[in-house]
Amino acid sequence: MNGIQLIAGSSHPVLAQKISKKLKIPLTPIVIKNFANGEIYVRVEKKVRGDDIFIIQTMGGGVNDTLMETLIMVDALKRSSAGRINLICPQLCYSRQDRRTRSHEPITSKLVANLLTKAGIDRLITVDLHAEQIQGFYDIPLDHLFGYPLIAKMILKEKYKDIVVVSPDIGGVKRANKLADLLGAPIAIIDKIRKEHNKCEVAHLVGDVKGKTAILIDDIIDTGGSICGAADTVKQFGAKEIIICATHALLNGEASKNLEKCSATKVMLLDSVPIPKEKRIKKMEIISLAILLSKIISRVHNEESLGELFKWEEQHKLL
Amino acid sequence: MNGIQLIAGSSHPVLAQKISKKLKIPLTPIVIKNFANGEIYVRVEKKVRGDDIFIIQTMGGGVNDTLMETLIMVDALKRSSAGRINLICPQLCYSRQDRRTRSHEPITSKLVANLLTKAGIDRLITVDLHAEQIQGFYDIPLDHLFGYPLIAKMILKEKYKDIVVVSPDIGGVKRANKLADLLGAPIAIIDKIRKEHNKCEVAHLVGDVKGKTAILIDDIIDTGGSICGAADTVKQFGAKEIIICATHALLNGEASKNLEKCSATKVMLLDSVPIPKEKRIKKMEIISLAILLSKIISRVHNEESLGELFKWEEQHKLL
Amino acid sequence: MNGIQLIAGSSHPVLAQKISKKLKIPLTPIVIKNFANGEIYVRVEKKVRGDDIFIIQTMGGGVNDTLMETLIMVDALKRSSAGRINLICPQLCYSRQDRRTRSHEPITSKLVANLLTKAGIDRLITVDLHAEQIQGFYDIPLDHLFGYPLIAKMILKEKYKDIVVVSPDIGGVKRANKLADLLGAPIAIIDKIRKEHNKCEVAHLVGDVKGKTAILIDDIIDTGGSICGAADTVKQFGAKEIIICATHALLNGEASKNLEKCSATKVMLLDSVPIPKEKRIKKMEIISLAILLSKIISRVHNEESLGELFKWEEQHKLL
Amino acid sequence: MNGIQLIAGSSHPVLAQKISKKLKIPLTPIVIKNFANGEIYVRVEKKVRGDDIFIIQTMGGGVNDTLMETLIMVDALKRSSAGRINLICPQLCYSRQDRRTRSHEPITSKLVANLLTKAGIDRLITVDLHAEQIQGFYDIPLDHLFGYPLIAKMILKEKYKDIVVVSPDIGGVKRANKLADLLGAPIAIIDKIRKEHNKCEVAHLVGDVKGKTAILIDDIIDTGGSICGAADTVKQFGAKEIIICATHALLNGEASKNLEKCSATKVMLLDSVPIPKEKRIKKMEIISLAILLSKIISRVHNEESLGELFKWEEQHKLL
Amino acid sequence: MNGIQLIAGSSHPVLAQKISKKLKIPLTPIVIKNFANGEIYVRVEKKVRGDDIFIIQTMGGGVNDTLMETLIMVDALKRSSAGRINLICPQLCYSRQDRRTRSHEPITSKLVANLLTKAGIDRLITVDLHAEQIQGFYDIPLDHLFGYPLIAKMILKEKYKDIVVVSPDIGGVKRANKLADLLGAPIAIIDKIRKEHNKCEVAHLVGDVKGKTAILIDDIIDTGGSICGAADTVKQFGAKEIIICATHALLNGEASKNLEKCSATKVMLLDSVPIPKEKRIKKMEIISLAILLSKIISRVHNEESLGELFKWEEQHKLL
Amino acid sequence: MNGIQLIAGSSHPVLAQKISKKLKIPLTPIVIKNFANGEIYVRVEKKVRGDDIFIIQTMGGGVNDTLMETLIMVDALKRSSAGRINLICPQLCYSRQDRRTRSHEPITSKLVANLLTKAGIDRLITVDLHAEQIQGFYDIPLDHLFGYPLIAKMILKEKYKDIVVVSPDIGGVKRANKLADLLGAPIAIIDKIRKEHNKCEVAHLVGDVKGKTAILIDDIIDTGGSICGAADTVKQFGAKEIIICATHALLNGEASKNLEKCSATKVMLLDSVPIPKEKRIKKMEIISLAILLSKIISRVHNEESLGELFKWEEQHKLL
Repeated sequence: MNGIQLIAGSSHPVLAQKISKKLKIPLTPIVIKNFANGEIYVRVEKKVRGDDIFIIQTMGGGVNDTLMETLIMVDALKRSSAGRINLICPQLCYSRQDRRTRSHEPITSKLVANLLTKAGIDRLITVDLHAEQIQGFYDIPLDHLFGYPLIAKMILKEKYKDIVVVSPDIGGVKRANKLADLLGAPIAIIDKIRKEHNKCEVAHLVGDVKGKTAILIDDIIDTGGSICGAADTVKQFGAKEIIICATHALLNGEASKNLEKCSATKVMLLDSVPIPKEKRIKKMEIISLAILLSKIISRVHNEESLGELFKWEEQHKLL
Repeated sequence: MNGIQLIAGSSHPVLAQKISKKLKIPLTPIVIKNFANGEIYVRVEKKVRGDDIFIIQTMGGGVNDTLMETLIMVDALKRSSAGRINLICPQLCYSRQDRRTRSHEPITSKLVANLLTKAGIDRLITVDLHAEQIQGFYDIPLDHLFGYPLIAKMILKEKYKDIVVVSPDIGGVKRANKLADLLGAPIAIIDKIRKEHNKCEVAHLVGDVKGKTAILIDDIIDTGGSICGAADTVKQFGAKEIIICATHALLNGEASKNLEKCSATKVMLLDSVPIPKEKRIKKMEIISLAILLSKIISRVHNEESLGELFKWEEQHKLL
Repeated sequence: MNGIQLIAGSSHPVLAQKISKKLKIPLTPIVIKNFANGEIYVRVEKKVRGDDIFIIQTMGGGVNDTLMETLIMVDALKRSSAGRINLICPQLCYSRQDRRTRSHEPITSKLVANLLTKAGIDRLITVDLHAEQIQGFYDIPLDHLFGYPLIAKMILKEKYKDIVVVSPDIGGVKRANKLADLLGAPIAIIDKIRKEHNKCEVAHLVGDVKGKTAILIDDIIDTGGSICGAADTVKQFGAKEIIICATHALLNGEASKNLEKCSATKVMLLDSVPIPKEKRIKKMEIISLAILLSKIISRVHNEESLGELFKWEEQHKLL
Repeated sequence: MNGIQLIAGSSHPVLAQKISKKLKIPLTPIVIKNFANGEIYVRVEKKVRGDDIFIIQTMGGGVNDTLMETLIMVDALKRSSAGRINLICPQLCYSRQDRRTRSHEPITSKLVANLLTKAGIDRLITVDLHAEQIQGFYDIPLDHLFGYPLIAKMILKEKYKDIVVVSPDIGGVKRANKLADLLGAPIAIIDKIRKEHNKCEVAHLVGDVKGKTAILIDDIIDTGGSICGAADTVKQFGAKEIIICATHALLNGEASKNLEKCSATKVMLLDSVPIPKEKRIKKMEIISLAILLSKIISRVHNEESLGELFKWEEQHKLL
Repeated sequence: MNGIQLIAGSSHPVLAQKISKKLKIPLTPIVIKNFANGEIYVRVEKKVRGDDIFIIQTMGGGVNDTLMETLIMVDALKRSSAGRINLICPQLCYSRQDRRTRSHEPITSKLVANLLTKAGIDRLITVDLHAEQIQGFYDIPLDHLFGYPLIAKMILKEKYKDIVVVSPDIGGVKRANKLADLLGAPIAIIDKIRKEHNKCEVAHLVGDVKGKTAILIDDIIDTGGSICGAADTVKQFGAKEIIICATHALLNGEASKNLEKCSATKVMLLDSVPIPKEKRIKKMEIISLAILLSKIISRVHNEESLGELFKWEEQHKLL
Repeated sequence: MNGIQLIAGSSHPVLAQKISKKLKIPLTPIVIKNFANGEIYVRVEKKVRGDDIFIIQTMGGGVNDTLMETLIMVDALKRSSAGRINLICPQLCYSRQDRRTRSHEPITSKLVANLLTKAGIDRLITVDLHAEQIQGFYDIPLDHLFGYPLIAKMILKEKYKDIVVVSPDIGGVKRANKLADLLGAPIAIIDKIRKEHNKCEVAHLVGDVKGKTAILIDDIIDTGGSICGAADTVKQFGAKEIIICATHALLNGEASKNLEKCSATKVMLLDSVPIPKEKRIKKMEIISLAILLSKIISRVHNEESLGELFKWEEQHKLL
């Protein structure tokens, strides 16, 4: 494999800069322009022939523009004879539409996989997929990284006592369980969709949080409604201190306000998507994926094993 | 679309016969032979040109032979100019290998999808996938049916009191939750993988079963070890009566003995795989998928909507 | 082929309504929602199994959202066993990026073709492609319609005298020539990119417009800058009356103001994209494609020849 | 990438020899035989495993035999484990059938793209495509070179005065415009298809050639009928001196005679196809592509940028 | 399936006419033109949308032109929305290059399969493939017909006594054996490639022909050299009467002269390729495939079984 | 290409060990487990990223399990970013189902090719295919090796006199002929399917074996019935000594007993499949493919020519 190049899409310049600095590889110059009707024009401003290209792009907001920008970049690179096109996409869009729950629905997450593959990516590197099965939507190599160990490390450092990991809903139990494993803690689940005997919906807690430090974990915080509701629920059930954690902090709409007002005292977030200043609040602690992604890029380029980076415990030690 | 034909693979003749009888369509004659080295020979003994073919095959035991038999049947049909090849496969093999949990693993469930699609099936009809995301492994139409409503209906008929639906592990919580929705009951979870302070593994119950009728639900019963252990656990935690339910009763090894000995008083199973006489025990109640599958075949052939058959509540009423 | 259905994307409800009315086929109900991060959710609210589906969608503004919406609709239809998926897309996005004019560029128009084909459309019906070669970017049947005869008909009806058809630039000469053929008129060309002896750029007219009615024709009016400049140029060169014509009236930014102020007395537009009230000015005459598209849909569904609809002269007579 | 090899098809041995000499790489021995029924037999007589292969082949005459020979060579190379198969094809056949102008026509130029890609070429290098959009018919890397700068260079060297570049028809305006840009000259167009008021066809000149040196440019000279007619037309309109230029000198039928007799005093041709002695006439000046192609081959093999070779001005300086 | 259409390529107008007459379906008008450089232009002159098209084309001489003509016809039909494209090609070109016997060779017969499939045929109908395994080169339905029963029927009618079927070489033994089965006769083999102790090549006969009627059978007669040599060999070994039979009478070069001069008294040929008057000699008896092919077309169109047409014995009775 | 790795499937550990030892490359550790229902779990226990992987697997018995195991290994390797996946499979399963001899049959050998290619192998290396045309079932590089020269070498070493090579049936004549070429011997054929005048089947010998050493050659010995019958037949026709040779010694059922009892005095076998101790009898001489395969692996990895290894005569000298 020839030289290595980093190319940043327009979605997360801060993360791209951090990775570039960490790896001591300058970002390849690229023109990305928007026409009046929304069409995107892309031109790489450097020779890429034969090189091992890493596109750094994430899909937090304006996902359709970002996805299309990515596909166009890949098309330009492929036609310019790039040696290998690796897409680093910490937050993959449409991952919640990963199955049909009603008839006449699409599986947009698979569609996205088909589009990226058809455009010509050779490898996808992503973080904390909404469902791990999405790996199988791709037939190209996909390196799926876990961000939760970074959160676990931060929690352990702060030496909380009497921890319980709480899943804000039934769908997130496995995720909570994994974090609990890392922390050596029990789990609890908020089950708010049960309607007994046609009564109205009542938040229900499976497990025990009384007097404990409740760690609420989710993959995505969108408008924050459900995670903040969960924080208030565990408060009602007697939790002493409440910490919210998430990988993908989309923070749409009133999310920051909701987090500000809710019962949580701390919000730990990864920077899989950019978190602009106006959305940041005091409670937030933001942990960067830059070091993890830099290591991955370096290993993939040098054809070294990523093995231990895929395991929670071992990744833990490395970072 | 021309005529309709039903072709039975060698895996589940009883189910095929039931469907054939229900639909009043005779099974198309087919030769399936095994050579001394295990190679399979298939020959359809009737003209299929232009017809709408439904293969009835399931993958309970000897899955590699059955999968290969299926692929060969599809190849023969495709080369014989079949109009459309629909595979009815209530139990899809390798569905538990649906993601990579460690490095250097395959995603065999996706591989199976690729093989079936490459061989030439035009549609897949299956029941209670291990993970719903497996739908996205296919780009052909896939009709995913739920068998749990059939179980719910049976439970409701027997008028148990004070029901709690119990998931035997963290991975099965969503499934338990769905059944609980149908039954209007709360859920509980057995969480046996937590190791607190390096102590040995202890079965742990999140939620409450004391004095209740515990419905233990799983998708697959393989050797029965884990579901029977779960039954004993809920017994220890004070459940009054225990019922085990599952869609895919593989019943390998000592499964029947284990079920016999365990604390459950009833075992409700669907016939997605054949359950031979020697594996049947008194506690078992077997509910057939034949009516559901017959309806599906008829609607697919006549290009009618399956919409309501995909919803738990409405499917419930239909059957 | 079973029943016919019309499904409207969110891009051009007026055109969809007109076609629906003309064909006396109601639009199939569909849910199209946007999530806070821009993700689109689509669900068809009627059975489509086996039916011949015509999606009516155009790509005037917000093209990436519209393109993605289209791909998701196609995915939903394909997985719902639609019989055939025909995309009626009068204005195809990215058609100006149809070749690489510099190194390290994409060919986004081909990328779009690959994406639509991969998602699963069976046929594309479009109007006045930026370059006719884009037909070859598709290997599925593509019915390419001409809108110019509708403009020609309107011009002929108004009985202008001494017509000359003017191409506003070198790239549009073939288009002008075709319209001139229909009108039995000569052509002229504005050639503004020649720089003789390093002087600044001068608009240059190849051919003669003095005292004539100049018909300026372009395929796309984006911000209108270049077509309005062309109108002023032909004015300077002595044209008596000036009419601007175009198929795809994107009318971005100051387009309507520019058209208002320029030397043209009339602006004839097709409705390949919606032209909202606030962009309409008095000079504009808008000719609808609804009748042409309705005829096409009807013929495609009934497997009748479109032959004559592809020829300028004959299409002319039909409409 | 391992070693580099040059393999010549049977179509243009002289060009292949020149490139081989320039690059100091001997041509790989290959057997190409014809059977009595026209079937072609190909066998490479040297190990190609892992090597970077450049096939030198053009498609001037007997295009179907040459195309098939090329496909067979590619098949042999692919099955012999060639590392990368690059096709150098200065004149690509069927490029004029690049769109459907009437119903029920093929797009043979796209078909050719599909055939070459299916057979297994990894890259195409070609010169002066009939339409630049043909680039998008390929999804493999395609390096499209311009030959016109070589012609411009020759014209500039001869210091003609008062140049006008003339397109022999409407379709060639863009090409003429590009050459005019290089020469800093104005353009004119012959428009012979206008029929005013049902009169017979009259050659019509848009622009001015009186007393000037008219440079007539076309991509392909087939039988020469149209370009020679154009030369006579510009003569009638008063051109002082007339020079015909073209990249692809097919020179079929009476082409050489026609060129001999017409009003042009010079005919400048590139050697994208072989021009046998019997077709050569005194007026002809033949400029070889060998140096340009050699540079390309060398850069592609060494994964160097071709960027400047794609730009008219810069390519100009290089050669 | 809609209407049926027959389209004749330029290769075998007589056979196409016979089939058209037999089926009472007129040939669809089509324009096939050749440009000076050998490029082929095709245009179907009738609507084909949705219809079931049967192309009648064979590949006897000028195979590359014919193959390319076929591919272009298919491209035109596909882009014109033909319902199904069936290629009737009694003699498939390049079928002798069906494996690699030396390194660095192509497998052109597979390449042809890939090209036809890529262009878009939906079904191939052919006669007496050089090797039956070529069926597996296709993944579309392929109906492989036997022409030998037509020959067998003719031989039986003439009531020869004491027949032995002779294969002219080792490679043809299976074919001879099949004919022998139909005739109830023994076989013999000419084995001319054995070189014992470095002596020169000697024709060697395995089996016995003395005093018998020797039926020499081959699939293809190209220049006739080998089959005529075989006739002379069996003469030397004492055969009383000699009859040569073949399906594909390419008759290149001196073939007719060779057949005239050789020891055979009769040459029975099928008309899988046209046999022009100037190649016909008195000994020849030509049996037409028209009836067999007409029956096939009719059955394929009506989705009836071809089963018995694939069996020698039963086909025998039908024709 | 990076490092080389050998990975052994579970089918032929002895051969894998021999190759590993010969090449001085240890076998890569791999976990291959079977679940109770026959599902196979595979995990490679070493980093393979970027490496050149050679899987050593054969398909002698339990072919469906072995084929599936192979496909799963390939899937795991592909998803783990292996650089190139080469499958060494001396005995390819289902190679006898390489064409349709009756209607409504599959071509399973092609299906296997499609499955292996779809799963992701980059190259196949195999020995003595049942029909050489199977090479064309693959579009990836396929290196087809001959094992017969190893047998020829052994026969020549033992200095038998008056050799005749006998094909046990019509289908094997080419194979016998090739061996005869190597040995400089004549051939004979057993033709046991002729039924003259409705009499019962009689073994019939074409050629002469009286007093000679008859070498009976077949590619596969399955249950041994037909080859042993052939041995007895040549005995009846007067052969003095009889030697049976074969590449693929499946030895199913009573094969060893049959060989023991039959008229052959020696049975020469290659080890393309494992021959367990309980199946070995005194007459057997087993020649290992390990040296040949080791040479191939080494050359493929180093991108050296295999040319001479494909020729009988030259391979002969090398081993």
